[in-house]
Amino acid sequence: MKNLRDFFKSLYPANKVQQGAKPRIVILISSRGSNMRAVLEAIHDGRLYAECALVLADREAAGLDVARKMGIRTELFPKGKSESREAFDARLAERLGREQPALIVCAGYLRIISAPLLKAFPRRIVNIHPSLLPAFPGLRAQKQALEYGVKVTGCTIHLVDAGVDTGKILAQAVVAVQKGDTEETLSRRILRAEHQLYWRTIGRYLKKVTSAS
Amino acid sequence: MKNLRDFFKSLYPANKVQQGAKPRIVILISSRGSNMRAVLEAIHDGRLYAECALVLADREAAGLDVARKMGIRTELFPKGKSESREAFDARLAERLGREQPALIVCAGYLRIISAPLLKAFPRRIVNIHPSLLPAFPGLRAQKQALEYGVKVTGCTIHLVDAGVDTGKILAQAVVAVQKGDTEETLSRRILRAEHQLYWRTIGRYLKKVTSAS
Repeated sequence: MKNLRDFFKSLYPANKVQQGAKPRIVILISSRGSNMRAVLEAIHDGRLYAECALVLADREAAGLDVARKMGIRTELFPKGKSESREAFDARLAERLGREQPALIVCAGYLRIISAPLLKAFPRRIVNIHPSLLPAFPGLRAQKQALEYGVKVTGCTIHLVDAGVDTGKILAQAVVAVQKGDTEETLSRRILRAEHQLYWRTIGRYLKKVTSAS
Repeated sequence: MKNLRDFFKSLYPANKVQQGAKPRIVILISSRGSNMRAVLEAIHDGRLYAECALVLADREAAGLDVARKMGIRTELFPKGKSESREAFDARLAERLGREQPALIVCAGYLRIISAPLLKAFPRRIVNIHPSLLPAFPGLRAQKQALEYGVKVTGCTIHLVDAGVDTGKILAQAVVAVQKGDTEETLSRRILRAEHQLYWRTIGRYLKKVTSAS
């Protein structure tokens, strides 16, 4: 099998040919998971060459139902009341490790990710943020953008590191602010861009990390 | 004359008809003034309805020659060695006031503008900055953007206030960062966007301030 792969690799550039098992991802959510759905649909339609091993939520999230209906394994994985962030993330790292994911995809996952999880999956956790980082990190980025009065904003896909929305940027898409935009209308338009950008970026990044390993 | 203007105003919406004297601008520069040139060309070609009363530089600037060759009045207006920033700006405010400008246009003007000048021309000083503010304010914005690793950057035209690149945003244009971009190649591409955006924004803002006054 190894030799057959080498034979094919000799015929085709490594980054062009998709061979072997599909790279596995897990998706972390905390709420409705509209980005999760867009990623799962891209997988289902064959636009994204990957397999979603698990959708995991840290709380009762509407997205769990969506995932189940799409035939994806789901799991509710709440933090214990007296559990520290680090203890929770150590437990989560152990749980996710059993899925052997090539990539952990945050899709509206509302927890800050701490050292035990970051160390278990270095450069293997991606997040999407509704602004052109480094502008407007943190919560309610669309509202921040409106209040600042920018004419363009957008979304950013980045690796998760120890900071808040500070990790290496993988992709960005631009969305124009329109006259009369409210937080809601702007958020909706940015979300449409997110749904286009996330699965494409995941696909590109998966190729990179799986060809490197 | 007043009555004739009122008559025409009754025929046409005020913001559509261009009547009376052209609004006067002055341009402040510190170096070659490529944005100055782009604005002057737009005026010369009739794309920008305005008159440049004066190009003023705070130091020996190559742009002064360019302006002179285009038939524009120029003036070297250096800060005295022991002169405070405020004293210089008070003197500059007095000098510029004599030109009765509707707008003061900073085009590579390298001084921070202090209270005396801001107070003399409230909301009447515009600047252009080579990033999508609020990202990458201050010096060498293009280098900052490259080092951060953003995928898109651009330029911002904003009113000048007491902060550094913090004033109200009038317009922004997006420029994609390309693989292999250096500070120089990226700066050049952003500059092309600046040359397109500045005169258009000046024209739009002049209409607004002259119709309001």
